[in-house]
Amino acid sequence: MTTQLAKDYITIDEGAQDQLFRRARTANSFTDEPVTEAHVRAIYDLVKWAPTSFNQQPLRVVLVRSPQARARLVEHMWDNNKAKTAGAPLVAVLAADTEFHHELPAQFPVFPEAKDAFFADPEVRRDSAVLNAALQVAYFLMGVRAAGLAAGPMSGFDAVGVAKEFFPDGIHRPLVVMNIGLPGENAWWDRLPRLAYDEVFASV
Amino acid sequence: MTTQLAKDYITIDEGAQDQLFRRARTANSFTDEPVTEAHVRAIYDLVKWAPTSFNQQPLRVVLVRSPQARARLVEHMWDNNKAKTAGAPLVAVLAADTEFHHELPAQFPVFPEAKDAFFADPEVRRDSAVLNAALQVAYFLMGVRAAGLAAGPMSGFDAVGVAKEFFPDGIHRPLVVMNIGLPGENAWWDRLPRLAYDEVFASV
Repeated sequence: MTTQLAKDYITIDEGAQDQLFRRARTANSFTDEPVTEAHVRAIYDLVKWAPTSFNQQPLRVVLVRSPQARARLVEHMWDNNKAKTAGAPLVAVLAADTEFHHELPAQFPVFPEAKDAFFADPEVRRDSAVLNAALQVAYFLMGVRAAGLAAGPMSGFDAVGVAKEFFPDGIHRPLVVMNIGLPGENAWWDRLPRLAYDEVFASV
Repeated sequence: MTTQLAKDYITIDEGAQDQLFRRARTANSFTDEPVTEAHVRAIYDLVKWAPTSFNQQPLRVVLVRSPQARARLVEHMWDNNKAKTAGAPLVAVLAADTEFHHELPAQFPVFPEAKDAFFADPEVRRDSAVLNAALQVAYFLMGVRAAGLAAGPMSGFDAVGVAKEFFPDGIHRPLVVMNIGLPGENAWWDRLPRLAYDEVFASV
């Protein structure tokens, strides 16, 4: 599945390129094979190294494992996402912690003053938390794929309801709900098109 | 540099794991080795396959190549980012197109009505563009590393000034400025700590 451009310029293993990008697909159904705690620990242990601004690491994740919690989550999903969220071996709610700055002096010890110098304003902090947690959602998705699993990321849910249900402290903003597991029967839609290079990139 | 958890659960090549995550670092200085158009095309050709909500692909990128444009960009960077932005072989401004919905019927032909059904509200559209473009920034960063290059992503810049300078249409929101190249002398800071698994993940 490789391409001439990839042969010429991409230096990671071809199998890894396929597994992470070219052959990977968003799964809409899953087998019953469980996704264990150890899987998730291994994924985090790999992707935690990817960068965030000021090393702020605002991503927080709730793994929805009990049938009761799963049922509560499914209530808040849009209709087209309910069945797959009910059936996935593991579902993760990925959220931005808008009060990440409390951890910042420990996580960014080279300039502990950043907590107050840059992140005192709640609006600045929220925007930074959302941007950086979104980066971490993408890193996590790559980690899921690196573990040989398929991800089904979704933004089609009632974010206010999910926040109230799973983050009652009011300081977290759910960004993505992600189904995780081995792909089941008819797991894929047909591949959708992608924008051409010149529709995305300009040089000045 | 691998770990027992990675050996047990991560199935992509160990070298790729190191190159993308464990050994990769944010570079603060670069060699003079150029980053070509073909490099960037190969990176995009790989990472374009990673998912966005409704396949919306809101990321837009300006590659700042001319000395004049580079000088204009450096003006808007925070002081601590000026020297490295001036010196990097390639600098990319990565932005969210808040009017991505015009392309949506072509990119999401399975439900072209999504353009109006979900993205008529400018605030909903902006939030969606920022979230999904941030995912794509992370995918792009992984692609830079997959090409054997180092990335220096920065959020320390005047976003209003950068938007006016490089996206005068007023519909793009710059998210990250990224230096790209081969790492130069003393390119790395000491590695910063990461949150422990239990500080990030909870199960319900």
